[in-house]
Amino acid sequence: MYSSLMEEYDAFKAKNLSLNMARGKPSPEQLDLSMDLLNKIESLNVKDSIDIRNYGGLDGLTEMKELFAQLLQVDTNEVIVGGNSSLSLMHDTISRALLKGVVDSDAPWVKAPKVKFLCPSPGYDRHFAICEMYDIEMITIDMLDDGPDMDQVEELVRNDDTIKGIWCVPKYSNPEGTTYSDEVVDRLANMETKAKDFRIFWDDAYTVHHLTDNPPILKSILKACKDAGNPNRVFIFASTSKVTFPGSGVAVMAASEENISFTKKLLGVQTIGADKINQLRHVHFLKDAAHVKHHMKKHAEIVKPKFDLVLNKLESELGKEGIASWSKPEGGYFISLNTLDGCAAEVVKLASAAGVTLTGAGATYPYGKDPRDRNIRIAPTFPGLTELEAAMDVFCLCVKLASIKKLLEQ
Amino acid sequence: MYSSLMEEYDAFKAKNLSLNMARGKPSPEQLDLSMDLLNKIESLNVKDSIDIRNYGGLDGLTEMKELFAQLLQVDTNEVIVGGNSSLSLMHDTISRALLKGVVDSDAPWVKAPKVKFLCPSPGYDRHFAICEMYDIEMITIDMLDDGPDMDQVEELVRNDDTIKGIWCVPKYSNPEGTTYSDEVVDRLANMETKAKDFRIFWDDAYTVHHLTDNPPILKSILKACKDAGNPNRVFIFASTSKVTFPGSGVAVMAASEENISFTKKLLGVQTIGADKINQLRHVHFLKDAAHVKHHMKKHAEIVKPKFDLVLNKLESELGKEGIASWSKPEGGYFISLNTLDGCAAEVVKLASAAGVTLTGAGATYPYGKDPRDRNIRIAPTFPGLTELEAAMDVFCLCVKLASIKKLLEQ
Repeated sequence: MYSSLMEEYDAFKAKNLSLNMARGKPSPEQLDLSMDLLNKIESLNVKDSIDIRNYGGLDGLTEMKELFAQLLQVDTNEVIVGGNSSLSLMHDTISRALLKGVVDSDAPWVKAPKVKFLCPSPGYDRHFAICEMYDIEMITIDMLDDGPDMDQVEELVRNDDTIKGIWCVPKYSNPEGTTYSDEVVDRLANMETKAKDFRIFWDDAYTVHHLTDNPPILKSILKACKDAGNPNRVFIFASTSKVTFPGSGVAVMAASEENISFTKKLLGVQTIGADKINQLRHVHFLKDAAHVKHHMKKHAEIVKPKFDLVLNKLESELGKEGIASWSKPEGGYFISLNTLDGCAAEVVKLASAAGVTLTGAGATYPYGKDPRDRNIRIAPTFPGLTELEAAMDVFCLCVKLASIKKLLEQ
Repeated sequence: MYSSLMEEYDAFKAKNLSLNMARGKPSPEQLDLSMDLLNKIESLNVKDSIDIRNYGGLDGLTEMKELFAQLLQVDTNEVIVGGNSSLSLMHDTISRALLKGVVDSDAPWVKAPKVKFLCPSPGYDRHFAICEMYDIEMITIDMLDDGPDMDQVEELVRNDDTIKGIWCVPKYSNPEGTTYSDEVVDRLANMETKAKDFRIFWDDAYTVHHLTDNPPILKSILKACKDAGNPNRVFIFASTSKVTFPGSGVAVMAASEENISFTKKLLGVQTIGADKINQLRHVHFLKDAAHVKHHMKKHAEIVKPKFDLVLNKLESELGKEGIASWSKPEGGYFISLNTLDGCAAEVVKLASAAGVTLTGAGATYPYGKDPRDRNIRIAPTFPGLTELEAAMDVFCLCVKLASIKKLLEQ
């Protein structure tokens, strides 16, 4: 069986494919949905009656704040509109906390001998990269079906005041597509933390990126934190990067008014405020939450068939083999697949040699080290359906090859 | 005389004026020069053959790098294109240096018990605010006619390894309008520094903002640093904020290739790259250095009469009184005025009470403390000519009043 699969594999190799399922990028067809953003901007009138071409507006246009407030279930004065990248907002929030602390800190985080973050995993490699760059020690937390393993989380934060934060992608998590349950949200909001300046970094990147008509509802973390008497515990982040144009979208940070006012004081030293003209373009184009929903349905029409193709391929090729399991997300940008232990790196290597680029094995874990070497993140949105099918054929074959090799070794 | 001036002052007060000469903001007429930036973008083609609507392009579009390279006399691979704010680039460079050090550092700056910066003053309050926020001790350096007092600078940096940087606005300095001489540039590039990771923060904000047809030439600091064997000594910053739209422009950082490559490695963790569509708009609109020059002439046509009005008023009202001296800049955004010692705060207070807002007294010095309480920054660009004339009448009157009061006290 191995040699017959190897023949198939060599045939793929001979085709000199060049396919990419590595990064969560919208496809050109999705980007085409937002081309009206590039039209001439007809009116510069805004509610704040300022000249939006000039300086000013540190926390963003009122209209943009209102739209984000709707989408994130927060109040307008709990919002700071950022530039084109929520990643930057997250990075900057951490670098500010390191150098200046947060609302409830006794000292800048960098003054402590050690700072640790909890990292539910598999998770998002760019979150982990920020921690790694700043020597923030990462503690892996298992992801369960309804979010991070809260028993682990509660136990750790109750006893260790060097644990200052946790990374969360609460809706359609990267890469598993998990939406946190109400219970998880409540436990995060209510848990006792030894560090009084503990912060939840709530990266709500896929909050409107549904694949079904009846999407799961994510409980409001800010409301839960307020109800728990911990209003300052959470920083929420999001952006329009995968709604309009990645790289030319608008990012946002939301938090308690006290957090916002603390942040604005520091932010006023860092910047003159984000691009207001681009914000107005987005307001004109996206209008309100109802219209965003409508717009995201068009995205789903393009994206859903790609997810279906991947899931069907996995089912037909690997469904009965017992050598892999995978997530069936209702939204977001990824499918998470677990091979047999010790096979992920080999699958990625085999696929790469046959011209199919996958996210690096291990990337979904802190320090790039998947302890069981089994998790692979599949990003189906960018390639066309034909390419995707070819890539999935190679991928499934590689899973089989690596699994047989592993089983033969045992 | 005092009482007759007080009558005049009371008459102004009765007018309930509301005039502002505080911040260096372009006027609406200047912003009108760039309205074509808001037109429909007709082509997304770029040299890099990437889809500029999608992710990617950490250091900017090639076209934008080429334009900035021309303007700043550097090479294309010595450039990183930023977002909409050079202030952010400067802030981020400092916060990165604090947390990670720079190319030649043994350790992050924040690990040292003390970090100091040299601050040629009068200078730019937002530079000083960054230092103050991060507890970087500021040492005031006198500004001479051709730049900072290099005897002071050389003496200090030779003997103190906690001095890690110097703020410079080398062309049409804020607020005096001074352009650094070749000798100053060479001495900065060549001086011996005890800190091997000493950095010049070269904020070339007004590099194309001339008021004359024969502008002074600023010697290339990067070339001077290379010639001196200190290629990594300088970070250059600039933006199109006062060329196109403040808040929606494009910022840039330039430095040696080693500095750029070090910075890009860290920057890749912070951001997915700046807004490429806005960069392309700017490339289409600004074209090349020759066209920028042409565009800036139109700015000068609007701005120059305002500078002339201020200078003429100062000359006619205060020229023979011996109670004030002021700069006569050939470019930039400000006129710097020195009153008699101990009068600046009083002038600003009097003007404010009569409805004329000036930059706060002391703002041009570290910690907001002008040791001689004499420097006032006049920002003539934003108001219309009629308003500016009224504001200057009030201002000159306030200078006279404060001076007489001070002289009577003595």
